[in-house]
Amino acid sequence: MQPARITVFAPATIANLSCGFDILGLALEGVGDLMHLELTEAPGVEIRKVSGMDLPLQADRNVAGVAAMALLEASEYRGGVAIEIEKRIKPGSGIGSSAASSAGAVWGLNQLLGAPFTTPELVGFAMKGEELASGAAHADNVAPALMGGITLVRSTDPLDLARVHCPPALHTCVLHPQIELKTSDARKILKTTIPLKLGIRQWGNVGGLITGFFTEDYGLISRSLEDGIVEPVRSLLIPGFTALRTAALEAGALGFGISGSGPSVFALTRGLETAQAVARALEAVYGGFGIPYEIHVSGVSREGVRALPEADPGS
Amino acid sequence: MQPARITVFAPATIANLSCGFDILGLALEGVGDLMHLELTEAPGVEIRKVSGMDLPLQADRNVAGVAAMALLEASEYRGGVAIEIEKRIKPGSGIGSSAASSAGAVWGLNQLLGAPFTTPELVGFAMKGEELASGAAHADNVAPALMGGITLVRSTDPLDLARVHCPPALHTCVLHPQIELKTSDARKILKTTIPLKLGIRQWGNVGGLITGFFTEDYGLISRSLEDGIVEPVRSLLIPGFTALRTAALEAGALGFGISGSGPSVFALTRGLETAQAVARALEAVYGGFGIPYEIHVSGVSREGVRALPEADPGS
Repeated sequence: MQPARITVFAPATIANLSCGFDILGLALEGVGDLMHLELTEAPGVEIRKVSGMDLPLQADRNVAGVAAMALLEASEYRGGVAIEIEKRIKPGSGIGSSAASSAGAVWGLNQLLGAPFTTPELVGFAMKGEELASGAAHADNVAPALMGGITLVRSTDPLDLARVHCPPALHTCVLHPQIELKTSDARKILKTTIPLKLGIRQWGNVGGLITGFFTEDYGLISRSLEDGIVEPVRSLLIPGFTALRTAALEAGALGFGISGSGPSVFALTRGLETAQAVARALEAVYGGFGIPYEIHVSGVSREGVRALPEADPGS
Repeated sequence: MQPARITVFAPATIANLSCGFDILGLALEGVGDLMHLELTEAPGVEIRKVSGMDLPLQADRNVAGVAAMALLEASEYRGGVAIEIEKRIKPGSGIGSSAASSAGAVWGLNQLLGAPFTTPELVGFAMKGEELASGAAHADNVAPALMGGITLVRSTDPLDLARVHCPPALHTCVLHPQIELKTSDARKILKTTIPLKLGIRQWGNVGGLITGFFTEDYGLISRSLEDGIVEPVRSLLIPGFTALRTAALEAGALGFGISGSGPSVFALTRGLETAQAVARALEAVYGGFGIPYEIHVSGVSREGVRALPEADPGS
């Protein structure tokens, strides 16, 4: 018999990875939400509690609720699910807050139902949550959140996902400036056409980055972490972006860019120590800015959403 | 002591591979030129003979001559080289005729001089020949011709090359309709801007194709062999393109597209037998067209330009 209750860790994610706008994402090992899910006799989705942030409890206005509802609709199960969310990733941070909630909800619910759905199917359900959050059904955060590691979204329609090899030493440093920047606004400022020359450079870099990941060629990864299309526009919305980039690269980062649609910025590094050095360098820059921020140093999550031991099964 | 004379096989190449416009290329195993190179006391480059095609013998107007001159200029060697070319790849075919001559010349000359230059340096010299041939210093034919297999040109300025894993069963079928189509003209009809949406789809496909090559996922390779930017325009210049594509895919090709800037078209297949079936299907289409054509079925050259045994060292 399946357990009736599960606790999951749902990781934060870095989408885009500079050149891989809308197609690449990476799951963080040490940053994420906790979620408790429990099957209920009453049908439908109940968001029982959200702690840590002020988010809607109404299931059809909550990303986890919408994602779970999409799964239930496709399922033969006639009962319901109650969800509690310990929110640790701030919404609007650019490290996949809504994706973590959506991914955690569908992964946990799928486990409770005996895993009737495949991972790509779960990504499809979780994308419904993304649609609620940002108005567009992106997969570049929910795919790495559910699959772990580095993932490629070749296409969203039809959905076509692939795992990209992740070099074991790859680490990340994420700085989240606590300013508001909505994904929908960050998309609006993008131009709808690009010069062909910049396009060629971008897909050359995508090719280089993916080849670098597979061959563990950190030099190639570093040279490929370049974005001549989105970053020049969006970085204007992020205070101190250029100073942060300079500091990160001087501290040894392989590359530096905007996480998702921002305002968080990220660096990739070879090894934990360099990620820690980058964190110190970024803090030194932001210390003088007077903008509150959070900073995370993390490896890459190999598995994505995962079950945690139940601390108190009676609660 | 180095031999004073060498015979090389210089392979034909397929540039672009659909989505990888200007960045990807692949070397053919069984299609290419033969070149004989011999050190001479007289300095400079002498194009002693070209057989098979009518090409300039004046070194500074011959792509092999220009490429060899670029190498000599960078070298300490004070003598010269005489080159004979047995041209088997028709110029203007779209399968890297000029690249084969340039690559064969610099690789052969480098061998005769005791290999003072690295492969990326040779690519740089060979690009001078490409510049003469098409007005632009492309690397997407000379890189695979010199490196073998599937190559990525992340950037031409500065030059940044990488090998992409080639699944062992990968085969090709190339059909060359004998119509004239100049690379410079084929470039002119391209628009200088593209919709961002098409760009995202293109770099998603580049990511999928390279991931498919590394993971030997033929389904992913097949789905990624798509080009929404260049092919819709250039295919209009190729008689019967749509009928050829349909025939190739029905015969089991993984994908079908324009080789380089055309007019040759190519299919990638899993296995030699499918490549042969595709060849029969393409011939069935072109039989009724009244346009002369050549067709090649080939594996992928693992090593690129290579030395052949000297048949008659005294000649």
